[in-house]
Amino acid sequence: MIAVLKRNASEEEKQKVIDVIKGENFDVHPIVGVEKTIIGVLGDQDNRTKLKEKLMTMSEVEKVVLILDPYKLTSWNFKQEKTVIDLGDGVKVGGNELTVMAGPCSVENEIQLMETAKIVKSAGAEILRGGAFKPRTSPYSFQGLGEEGLKLLAQAREETGLKVITELMDIAHIDVVCEYTDIIQIGARNMQNYALLKEIGKLDKPVMLKRGMAATIKEWLLAAEYVMNEGNHDVILCERGVRTFGEETRNTMDLSSVPLVQQLSHLPVIADPSHGTGRWELVTPVARAAVAVGADGIMVEVHPNPENALSDGPQSLKPENFRLMMDEIKTIHSSLHSFESRERKIAYA
Amino acid sequence: MIAVLKRNASEEEKQKVIDVIKGENFDVHPIVGVEKTIIGVLGDQDNRTKLKEKLMTMSEVEKVVLILDPYKLTSWNFKQEKTVIDLGDGVKVGGNELTVMAGPCSVENEIQLMETAKIVKSAGAEILRGGAFKPRTSPYSFQGLGEEGLKLLAQAREETGLKVITELMDIAHIDVVCEYTDIIQIGARNMQNYALLKEIGKLDKPVMLKRGMAATIKEWLLAAEYVMNEGNHDVILCERGVRTFGEETRNTMDLSSVPLVQQLSHLPVIADPSHGTGRWELVTPVARAAVAVGADGIMVEVHPNPENALSDGPQSLKPENFRLMMDEIKTIHSSLHSFESRERKIAYA
Amino acid sequence: MIAVLKRNASEEEKQKVIDVIKGENFDVHPIVGVEKTIIGVLGDQDNRTKLKEKLMTMSEVEKVVLILDPYKLTSWNFKQEKTVIDLGDGVKVGGNELTVMAGPCSVENEIQLMETAKIVKSAGAEILRGGAFKPRTSPYSFQGLGEEGLKLLAQAREETGLKVITELMDIAHIDVVCEYTDIIQIGARNMQNYALLKEIGKLDKPVMLKRGMAATIKEWLLAAEYVMNEGNHDVILCERGVRTFGEETRNTMDLSSVPLVQQLSHLPVIADPSHGTGRWELVTPVARAAVAVGADGIMVEVHPNPENALSDGPQSLKPENFRLMMDEIKTIHSSLHSFESRERKIAYA
Amino acid sequence: MIAVLKRNASEEEKQKVIDVIKGENFDVHPIVGVEKTIIGVLGDQDNRTKLKEKLMTMSEVEKVVLILDPYKLTSWNFKQEKTVIDLGDGVKVGGNELTVMAGPCSVENEIQLMETAKIVKSAGAEILRGGAFKPRTSPYSFQGLGEEGLKLLAQAREETGLKVITELMDIAHIDVVCEYTDIIQIGARNMQNYALLKEIGKLDKPVMLKRGMAATIKEWLLAAEYVMNEGNHDVILCERGVRTFGEETRNTMDLSSVPLVQQLSHLPVIADPSHGTGRWELVTPVARAAVAVGADGIMVEVHPNPENALSDGPQSLKPENFRLMMDEIKTIHSSLHSFESRERKIAYA
Repeated sequence: MIAVLKRNASEEEKQKVIDVIKGENFDVHPIVGVEKTIIGVLGDQDNRTKLKEKLMTMSEVEKVVLILDPYKLTSWNFKQEKTVIDLGDGVKVGGNELTVMAGPCSVENEIQLMETAKIVKSAGAEILRGGAFKPRTSPYSFQGLGEEGLKLLAQAREETGLKVITELMDIAHIDVVCEYTDIIQIGARNMQNYALLKEIGKLDKPVMLKRGMAATIKEWLLAAEYVMNEGNHDVILCERGVRTFGEETRNTMDLSSVPLVQQLSHLPVIADPSHGTGRWELVTPVARAAVAVGADGIMVEVHPNPENALSDGPQSLKPENFRLMMDEIKTIHSSLHSFESRERKIAYA
Repeated sequence: MIAVLKRNASEEEKQKVIDVIKGENFDVHPIVGVEKTIIGVLGDQDNRTKLKEKLMTMSEVEKVVLILDPYKLTSWNFKQEKTVIDLGDGVKVGGNELTVMAGPCSVENEIQLMETAKIVKSAGAEILRGGAFKPRTSPYSFQGLGEEGLKLLAQAREETGLKVITELMDIAHIDVVCEYTDIIQIGARNMQNYALLKEIGKLDKPVMLKRGMAATIKEWLLAAEYVMNEGNHDVILCERGVRTFGEETRNTMDLSSVPLVQQLSHLPVIADPSHGTGRWELVTPVARAAVAVGADGIMVEVHPNPENALSDGPQSLKPENFRLMMDEIKTIHSSLHSFESRERKIAYA
Repeated sequence: MIAVLKRNASEEEKQKVIDVIKGENFDVHPIVGVEKTIIGVLGDQDNRTKLKEKLMTMSEVEKVVLILDPYKLTSWNFKQEKTVIDLGDGVKVGGNELTVMAGPCSVENEIQLMETAKIVKSAGAEILRGGAFKPRTSPYSFQGLGEEGLKLLAQAREETGLKVITELMDIAHIDVVCEYTDIIQIGARNMQNYALLKEIGKLDKPVMLKRGMAATIKEWLLAAEYVMNEGNHDVILCERGVRTFGEETRNTMDLSSVPLVQQLSHLPVIADPSHGTGRWELVTPVARAAVAVGADGIMVEVHPNPENALSDGPQSLKPENFRLMMDEIKTIHSSLHSFESRERKIAYA
Repeated sequence: MIAVLKRNASEEEKQKVIDVIKGENFDVHPIVGVEKTIIGVLGDQDNRTKLKEKLMTMSEVEKVVLILDPYKLTSWNFKQEKTVIDLGDGVKVGGNELTVMAGPCSVENEIQLMETAKIVKSAGAEILRGGAFKPRTSPYSFQGLGEEGLKLLAQAREETGLKVITELMDIAHIDVVCEYTDIIQIGARNMQNYALLKEIGKLDKPVMLKRGMAATIKEWLLAAEYVMNEGNHDVILCERGVRTFGEETRNTMDLSSVPLVQQLSHLPVIADPSHGTGRWELVTPVARAAVAVGADGIMVEVHPNPENALSDGPQSLKPENFRLMMDEIKTIHSSLHSFESRERKIAYA
């Protein structure tokens, strides 16, 4: 940690700050410049947030800069090889293959889901997505089928061999959701619902953690720390766009977050161009970009009849467009293998 | 609702859109311009989101504009007089008086809390704030004292006569939190934790709903609708700053949201300059501004020794500064009564 | 245009609004719903902004929604085939080939520029970038070599056959910049410097217009309209990242803007991953993504010794990394040709 | 400056970084922690940006943190008393009085301007605003009356004794604008038009510099440095709202920027609630808040008939509302004098 003293701080003021730091059992390394003095602080990392806030309350201190990252379990420092989440039957997230999760926004009924599952399977995706409990901005919108939806997902898994991912919003539903799903999805709105993250952390079930609408990379990784700190290390991160001043798309897809997270963390990162754009015409080009930037997979919304979807129709691909997208992203993904990826070497170094 | 057809849509395309609208039992009012046709749509408001999304999936439709606001229970249309929340003993939120909620970020121990409570009380605040369950960005930061903290809050209430507000993060803690608090606080991170909002909605206990870090006014009011829709109409809104590109303050205080919400809703709105700025030197001027803009109250962090606070020390006022702030905001508030407030008239019209 | 009257507007209020609209010689098409009345407005598009603002000042009107886009010359409606800018010697922007503009942030001296130009040329780029007049946030930073830099660019063009692009910041420099460059670059900070845009519009010289740091798609295209409206139709758009709450990268690259602009406009769009990320390790993956999303070209910073660059060293690629990037983006670009691009079909339809 | 080496950097890597720093003639103060080494760097401030960028290109360096602020002339360090700009006839900006600048967005014609000037004068404002050259997002909107507008402003000054402020967008208009105005306004879109700032800096005429739509406090003050560095020290800063995700107001008024800037700089800061909100109903409450937060003045749009304004009608106050606003802000401003303002003491300390 570095504490920067206010300009032209007196010797007495400097000593006061030093005393506070030493009082918390940290070592002090002052560097006296012409206009400002900075104090390097070394010591127990677990108390540094407390010391930082303490220093920030002092009028003698202008600012405090943390040097060490707050990440522990998510960082390459904790684990030197990339996390690969094995869902069985050869389906993995984080390995060499591109993993595709596709399906409707909401599970609506048996016909809709089975039809979608077959389309998704035949186009080469490995995982079926579908919401049974839906977070809707308005309480007056369709809230999902609940357990009935979960049963339909399980039925689709049985019929197609696809793995299943579905969202969990409420601790009260943990048991029922876990009974039916292969991956638990935590949505953007719940990325900092710490009560939920802690409960998920106690499970033996992979989790996909979507980035919050206004979450920095740091906050996103710290949310993953909440899960991992309780023991569950099977975490997938999902970039789904952030909120900006942009008015033409539902969100602004922050694709540079993918290689950035890969430099910081061993966890797999996938991208969701459906929520990232909110417009089906943009889903395929952004999916291609996500694969090109190095994402470990793609989550995308597909519906047999988007015009009759109970939610997110405008950002859902029709079956034929989904098949085209699959061709395109596989082609891009193959081309990535033809050259050695420089930034991956960096990440793994 | 207005559906705008794509430029130079053919007669056949127009008819296709009309058929879809009529198929959902809405009435159709086309207006044919030189370049574009728009279709006015009238009918059952409860199905409009579904119809809107359906239309947005059609390539014949360029965009869809909703005309009616999504708010119901929060709007002036539902209730024509301002909501005043009566906490007993003459303490109200939303009435003619300015209500001040003050106290430490976290309840740390008996001495700290009792000392703060007395300071807060003697300076003229009515409600004591203090976190027992703390949402922290990192799992490695202090997480609060839990029930012990709640008991200390209740003890402070007994000793001072102050009312109490504390944050609820987890449905599992509803009973214990309700046992001790007068107002339940829902934090910014949980503004769209719908499972929690629905449970709160079933209680007979006032709720203060903080605005999410990236929540629009619409999303904020719809979160309040989640609570009210379950039956609990005692909702206070709290502006606490939003996330922007600004790097010098913790958040960017959006003070124009206060009069804006007051135009849309009968619910009381208070402002939190501590979280809105993150820097104690800015708390008092922004508190003054919040009162001047018309807020129904202020929530502010106070600590007897901010340099020893376990959380949020940098944004906590020292006792003497808190007393100065109280003087200043009361002076501003009194001066507001000396003229007729134009925008309030608008809101109540 | 649609004017939405306030809820439960009286017949008299409705008539007042209608009279205003008719007074401006627009036609009126009212649609009376249960709670609100909307009025469709048809008429002369050139006066619609004036009428819109007039209606927005009326307390009887709740909001006004424009239906027609404000774009004219930039839109597919004005021109049905994509703009291809021919720089001579087979170098084009907007055609079937991917165009690469590369070079140092600033022209520093002869050795630096000639060395970079050769690297850029041999790796397959067509256009040399280099700043002679530099917009720097601080007046105390290196401001560029001025005309001397322009002469070096022209010398590099002569020696390598590369075309040249350089930034123009000041109307006073138009003649000298035009004497040496093939494309005039307008930087992000000057995207709404309308005096400059109008002067550029009078020239017979291609222009590349970078997106402003906080510019919506609409504002960006309207800035291009300023140039085109004066007669210069050779405009290239360049996405270079927007400002968000993100703190880990210099900007947030908004790659979905590329296909979005291609749907709205016939102008070529290129992407600048150097400014979009600010970090050289992220430049290559984001360049790949930009090509995959469909950009017509890439602008990228290259320096023989980034550690000695006078500006933007941290986001400049070293020669060997630039060559790797070129291989990668060419591979991605070729793979795009192997399938028919759906969204291009949409754009051209 | 602090250079943070990458985790577990070897002795050799450390030495390499040290050599680079010494090669630029800076002193080196390494602090070796358990996981990371940081290097304190002392030396000539004028070369620090260059050294910073150089270090950032090195793979041995994780990040570089500047310690000294980039401000020189704008800071309290340069000048220990607040800048007061004296416009003559007792009109000052930055003194103890609240200065009000009011008038129409655009000068439209003689009747409109003279009528507004009288209203503005009689309500107690000191400065008349009015645009003669208008920056409009679309080239198809009203662009202002040009010199004719300037002449009308001068005529209004003569008739009322008000001082005049008007916007300058183009270096070519410097002479004509200076002939008629008392203060030159630089608009938000031109805050980083450095060519313009440098020319303004050579004049002997006060300048008001509006904050750019996405400008940080640092960038704003550095833009003021561009002006001051050329010799013109009469700079007024104007907060006019920043761009955020908010969709309900034209901009988001960042009122905490006012006390923040006052802590960093001796320059006067005023606030523009008209552009900050874009909605006339919000102008008065936000003007009150701006005064309460400590702004040195207010700029506000007034129009005798907002419904006929050629620009910005929706955010213009009617005469009677302007008079009410003047009463309210004067009352607030007087109440500020009744207590000692703590944060001002801080700023001046």
